[in-house]
Amino acid sequence: MKQAAIIGGTGYGALELIRFLEHHPYVSISKIISRSEEGTEVSERYPHLHTVIKEEFSALDDKTFEHIDIVFFATPAGVAKDILPKIKKKGVQYIDLSGDLRINDGEEYRMWYGQEPPSQGLQKEAVYGLPEFYRESIKKAEIISNPGCFATAALLGIIPAVSKGLVDPENVVIDGKTGVSGAGRKQSLMTHFSETNENVKAYKMGSHQHTPEIEQHVSTLTGKNPLISFQTHLIPMTRGIMCTIYADLKRAESIHDVYQKFYENHPFVRMRPEGNIPQTKEVYGSNYCDIGIHVDGRTNKLIIVSVVDNLVKGASGQAIQNMNLMNGWNEQESLSVIPIYP
Amino acid sequence: MKQAAIIGGTGYGALELIRFLEHHPYVSISKIISRSEEGTEVSERYPHLHTVIKEEFSALDDKTFEHIDIVFFATPAGVAKDILPKIKKKGVQYIDLSGDLRINDGEEYRMWYGQEPPSQGLQKEAVYGLPEFYRESIKKAEIISNPGCFATAALLGIIPAVSKGLVDPENVVIDGKTGVSGAGRKQSLMTHFSETNENVKAYKMGSHQHTPEIEQHVSTLTGKNPLISFQTHLIPMTRGIMCTIYADLKRAESIHDVYQKFYENHPFVRMRPEGNIPQTKEVYGSNYCDIGIHVDGRTNKLIIVSVVDNLVKGASGQAIQNMNLMNGWNEQESLSVIPIYP
Amino acid sequence: MKQAAIIGGTGYGALELIRFLEHHPYVSISKIISRSEEGTEVSERYPHLHTVIKEEFSALDDKTFEHIDIVFFATPAGVAKDILPKIKKKGVQYIDLSGDLRINDGEEYRMWYGQEPPSQGLQKEAVYGLPEFYRESIKKAEIISNPGCFATAALLGIIPAVSKGLVDPENVVIDGKTGVSGAGRKQSLMTHFSETNENVKAYKMGSHQHTPEIEQHVSTLTGKNPLISFQTHLIPMTRGIMCTIYADLKRAESIHDVYQKFYENHPFVRMRPEGNIPQTKEVYGSNYCDIGIHVDGRTNKLIIVSVVDNLVKGASGQAIQNMNLMNGWNEQESLSVIPIYP
Amino acid sequence: MKQAAIIGGTGYGALELIRFLEHHPYVSISKIISRSEEGTEVSERYPHLHTVIKEEFSALDDKTFEHIDIVFFATPAGVAKDILPKIKKKGVQYIDLSGDLRINDGEEYRMWYGQEPPSQGLQKEAVYGLPEFYRESIKKAEIISNPGCFATAALLGIIPAVSKGLVDPENVVIDGKTGVSGAGRKQSLMTHFSETNENVKAYKMGSHQHTPEIEQHVSTLTGKNPLISFQTHLIPMTRGIMCTIYADLKRAESIHDVYQKFYENHPFVRMRPEGNIPQTKEVYGSNYCDIGIHVDGRTNKLIIVSVVDNLVKGASGQAIQNMNLMNGWNEQESLSVIPIYP
Repeated sequence: MKQAAIIGGTGYGALELIRFLEHHPYVSISKIISRSEEGTEVSERYPHLHTVIKEEFSALDDKTFEHIDIVFFATPAGVAKDILPKIKKKGVQYIDLSGDLRINDGEEYRMWYGQEPPSQGLQKEAVYGLPEFYRESIKKAEIISNPGCFATAALLGIIPAVSKGLVDPENVVIDGKTGVSGAGRKQSLMTHFSETNENVKAYKMGSHQHTPEIEQHVSTLTGKNPLISFQTHLIPMTRGIMCTIYADLKRAESIHDVYQKFYENHPFVRMRPEGNIPQTKEVYGSNYCDIGIHVDGRTNKLIIVSVVDNLVKGASGQAIQNMNLMNGWNEQESLSVIPIYP
Repeated sequence: MKQAAIIGGTGYGALELIRFLEHHPYVSISKIISRSEEGTEVSERYPHLHTVIKEEFSALDDKTFEHIDIVFFATPAGVAKDILPKIKKKGVQYIDLSGDLRINDGEEYRMWYGQEPPSQGLQKEAVYGLPEFYRESIKKAEIISNPGCFATAALLGIIPAVSKGLVDPENVVIDGKTGVSGAGRKQSLMTHFSETNENVKAYKMGSHQHTPEIEQHVSTLTGKNPLISFQTHLIPMTRGIMCTIYADLKRAESIHDVYQKFYENHPFVRMRPEGNIPQTKEVYGSNYCDIGIHVDGRTNKLIIVSVVDNLVKGASGQAIQNMNLMNGWNEQESLSVIPIYP
Repeated sequence: MKQAAIIGGTGYGALELIRFLEHHPYVSISKIISRSEEGTEVSERYPHLHTVIKEEFSALDDKTFEHIDIVFFATPAGVAKDILPKIKKKGVQYIDLSGDLRINDGEEYRMWYGQEPPSQGLQKEAVYGLPEFYRESIKKAEIISNPGCFATAALLGIIPAVSKGLVDPENVVIDGKTGVSGAGRKQSLMTHFSETNENVKAYKMGSHQHTPEIEQHVSTLTGKNPLISFQTHLIPMTRGIMCTIYADLKRAESIHDVYQKFYENHPFVRMRPEGNIPQTKEVYGSNYCDIGIHVDGRTNKLIIVSVVDNLVKGASGQAIQNMNLMNGWNEQESLSVIPIYP
Repeated sequence: MKQAAIIGGTGYGALELIRFLEHHPYVSISKIISRSEEGTEVSERYPHLHTVIKEEFSALDDKTFEHIDIVFFATPAGVAKDILPKIKKKGVQYIDLSGDLRINDGEEYRMWYGQEPPSQGLQKEAVYGLPEFYRESIKKAEIISNPGCFATAALLGIIPAVSKGLVDPENVVIDGKTGVSGAGRKQSLMTHFSETNENVKAYKMGSHQHTPEIEQHVSTLTGKNPLISFQTHLIPMTRGIMCTIYADLKRAESIHDVYQKFYENHPFVRMRPEGNIPQTKEVYGSNYCDIGIHVDGRTNKLIIVSVVDNLVKGASGQAIQNMNLMNGWNEQESLSVIPIYP
C-alpha cells in the first residue's frame, strides 16, 4: 500500500482526491495537510465525510514526508513552486494540481500569473499530466503538472481537429463556461451566492491564465503556433465546464470519424455519436470528457463542444489518473464512476 | 451472477438503480423495460450512460422474466399492484419502489392515493423495506415495498425519540423540504424550471401520501398511534430531502446518547456529533441518512433534522440495500459511495 | 422635496431603498454613506445603477446631516444604537432597518444579540414599524424600528389567528425558510455559492434573534405570552421568505373569513382565496405579504403559509411604507410595484 | 385612454406586458385573450397578480376587437401570421412579439422556421421594432415585428462596430447564453428543472432562427452581407441573455468612444465605462441593454459583451417601447424601472 499526502487539505480539490483515494486498492491517505486547521478532524470541517474519514488535518513539519510515496499539491497558485524544491526526494511522486509548473516560459508565467516563475530546473522536470496526449511520459514522470480545468476541456476538444488538419489553426475562438466551484472555497464577491445566482458573468477578459497553457500544448502537439482567443464565463451552477470551440473548416469529410478514431483507446474521452452534443450535467461527478461536434456548412465552421466536471477530469480525477499511470496501475482504477444524473 | 430487470426504465429511479447495479459484483442488469422506448438504446435517451450501458429498452412480454431473479418496479403509483400479481413466480425477488404496497389498510390507500388498493393477499406478503427497523424480515422477504423518500427521512428521524419515550408522540410536527427530482421526469408546471427556480412552494397541503406511511410505522414500531402533522415544500434544487421534526420533550437527558446508540450498528445512518446539524448537500449522491438533534430547553421541544438524497436512501439506494439483505450479501455492497461535495 | 440619507450604503438594504426612493415624488436621496467606499461612485460599485444614480458614497462627518430630513440605517446590528444618539435632532425622522431597537427588554437583547443593549430612553422612543398593526403610532413616530424579515412574515401570518382566538397560542411552531440575500453582502461560507447551491441548511438552532421579536409582538397585540418554537432554514435562492406556521385549532369555522376581514384595509397584505397557498416567487420584488391558510381537520391544526420578499416587505419596502406614513403621504407611494414573475 | 388587447395571454410575454401596462398613463388593458383559459380569472392562473388584475381571460370572437386600439401578439410562432390578416383594421396598431414577421425572404423563413411564410404583403407592412436603429419608421408604423431576444442583444452589440468599420464583418462569432424563460411556459425536457439545473446545454446547433434575423439587419444597417456564426446555450437561470461577440479588429483606437457616442441618445442602451463588462443580473427586470467591450490586442479581436433581460428588452419591454413611439408618447413611459439587484 502506497502512502499519500495531500497538501492544501481544506480545498475542493482535496475533497475530490479523498473521494477517489478512499476506495483505491493500492493507496492509502496518510496525511491531509492544512496549517490553518491543524488538529481539527477532517470530518468536523467536512461533515459529508463523517464516519468515512477519521484523520485530522496536520501541519507541515520535518517528519511530514517520512513515509510518504505520493504527494498531491491541491494548493493555490504559488505554493507548490516554493515548497516542492525543499521537500523533493528521490522516489517520491509529486502531482501539482495548481498552475505553478504549467508554463514552460518564465516570462510568460510572470505575465499571466503575476508571480515569479518556478526555477527552470524544476519546471523542466515536470510532465504535463494530460494522459490522452502524454501517456508515455507520464508513466515515467516523477513530477506531474496537472492540467487546468479549462485547458483540459479545450485541448481535448481542439487537438484532433488541428493535428489532423481539419481546421485552420489561426482563427480559433474558445468560449468557456464554468461552474463556481472552480474558484475554490475562498470567498469573494464572485462566489457570493446572491451575486452569482441568476447571473452570467464574463470574467478575466482576454487574460485567463489557461490561455498560454492551451497555446503551448497546441504548439507542442501540432507544430502550429496560433494565438487562441479564449474567453471565460461564470455560470450559476456548482460544477461543470463547457468549451464551445469555433474553428474554420479546411475539409468537411469524415470529421466525426477522425475524432472517433482519435479517442478510441482513451477510456475517459467519450466521443458522442453524430448529432449528439454533450451537456455538462452528463459528466457530473465523473472523470469523463465528453465531446460532440457540429459541422456548420453554411458558415464553414466546425463547432466543437467539450465538457468536463471541473473538479474531476478538470482537477482531482485527472490527478488520480496520472497517479495510476505513474505506478503502472490500471488507468481507470477507482475512477470508473458513473456520472450522477440528474 | 443474478439477473435483474428494471420496469419503468426511463425514470430517475431506474437511472439510480443502474448507477449502483453496474458495479455490483453479484448482479447483472438483464432487462431495462420501457414500453414507450422499446428498441431505443438506453444511452441514446440518457447520454451520461454513453459507453457505460449498451442495452436497449425492451417491452414487457411473455419472455421478459424467463431468466430473471430480481425485479425492480421503478414505476409510477398504480403500476406494480396490477403487474406484479400477473408475473409473480416462486423464487423471484420483487422490489417495488412505488407506493403501491406501502399502506396496509385498503380504505386508507384509497383515500390518500385516490386509486383502488392492491389485493390484500399481495399487500400482506410485502415487507416494508426500511432495513434499520425491519432488517430480519427483509432478509426473508420475497416482495419488498420500498419506503417513500419523505417517510424514510421522517421515520429514521423520529422513531428513536418516540420508541425510547423521549418525546410525546401526540404532538409531532414534520416540516418536509424536497428537491424537484422527487417528482420524477414527468413534466408539469411544478417541475418547470422558470416556475420553480427562485421559489419555495408548499404543496399537497395536509394531504401528502407519505403521511399514512409514516403514521403506520410509528404505530408498528412504538405501539403508539399518534396523528402526525406533516407538510411538504418544494425547494429549488434537484436532489435532497430534509425533515425538520418538532416534538415535545418528555425528558432531556442523554438524548444524544440514545440516538447514537440506536443507530450504532446501522452503517447508513450517521448520527452527527452534538451541536452538529446535517445539510442535504452532505449526503448528495450517497445512501446515507444523516441526523442531528437540538434540544430547545426554552420551549421544551426536541428538534430533529434528518436528511437523505431522495433518489438514493429515499429510493434506489435503499432498494439496493434491501436487495443485498434479501440475498445474504453485505448490506453495503456497491453502496459505499462518498457524498459528492460540493 | 425632503432630503434622505442612507447609512450603510453598500448593502442590499440600501440598494432596495434606492430602487424605491429614486421614483418617489416627495423624497430625494441626498447622501449615501459608506466609510469604506467614500468617494467611489455608487454606480461603479453597483453597475446596475449606471446612468440611474450619479452620486458618490460619502463618509459620515459633521456636515452630513445638515439638510437631511430622513435618515435610514441600513447597517449591521450594533451600529444604529451607537450612532443615533449622537446625531439625533428634533424634526428629523430616523428609520432603523437593523435589529438594534426591536427588543424592549435589555436583558433579552443582550441574550439574543450578544451585544450591549441600546439605552432605555432611545429604545422607548422607537416605534415598531409594522404598519398593519401599529399604523397610528407610526404616523406620529420620530424613530422607527423596522421589523425583521422573518418577524414580518411570522407576525402577519399568526396574529389574526391568535388575536381572534382561532388557535391555542401555547403550541405554535414556525418553520422559516429564507433566500440567501437575507445574510447581506458580507461573505461567509453560508453565502458561498458552492456550499449553498443544491442545499438546504437549518441554522441558528432555536436561537434566531427574530424569536423574541415575534414573541414580544404576539404578547403586545394579543395579550398572550406564549413561547414560540421558531426554526430557520437557508434555501438556495436569492430572495424570498416563507413561514409555515403550525397551530392547534380552537375553532374551525369561518377562519378564512376572519383573515380576509382582518386585512381588508391593508393594501400590502394579500389574503389568498380559499385553497390557494402563496409561493415566495409570487411576491418577488414587491412589497406584498401573501397569506394562505389550510385547515387540517384530521390533525386539528391550522397551517398558515406567509411569504414576503425579504428585501422588500421584509426590509426596505416596509421602511418606505413607514416613511410614507410618518409624512402623511399615501402609504403605497412608490411601492405599487407588481411582483416580477417568473 | 387607449385600449389594448393581448393575444396569447397565458405566456410569460403576456405577463410582462401586463406588468408594464398596468401603470401606463395612456393605455388600459381591455382584453387578455386565451382560448384554453376562457372565463378563468387571470389572477387565479397567476396569483402574483392577485388584487392587481381583476380581468378574466376571454376567447377570440367577432366582438373582441371592437373598441381596441392596440393589439399585442404574445403567441408562439405561426399564430400571428394567420390571425393578423383576418382582424386587421385601419387605425389599429399591431405589435407581434413572435418571429412571424421578422424574416423578409419567404424561402429563408421556411428554412429556419419550418413553416409556411406569411403573405408578402403583410410582411412588407411590418416594421422591425428595434428603436435604436429604426425609430423613425416605428413612429409611423401600423404593424411592428418585435425583435427576437437574442437578435436584440446581438444587433445592439455588433452594429456600431460593423457600421463604423471597426471590425471585419466577415468573421464574426456570437456565442449566446440564455436563461430558461425564453422557452416560455410550454413544458419540455429542456425546461424540466431536474434536467436544466446544474447544467449548460448547447442547443439548436447552427440552426437558431434568430440567425437570419441578425444577418438581415446587419445587412440593412451596414450594407455588408456577412454570414454570422451564432450558437446558443441554455443556462440554469430564469431570466437573462448574454451575447459574447468575437470580431477581428480593423482599427483599435477610440473604439469605446465610438460606442459611447453611438448610443448617447438612446436611453435604454447603457454603454459601460471602459474596463467594465456587464452581467445579466445587472439588467434583471429592466428594459436596458448593457454593453461592454474589450480590445484584445494580443489576438487582435474585439470582444463585445451585450446583455438584456430576455423578457423585457428582449420581448415585452421593447414592445412597450415601440408602442410608446408609435403613439408619440415618451419612449420611456412606464419603462423606467431600475433593475432588481441582487
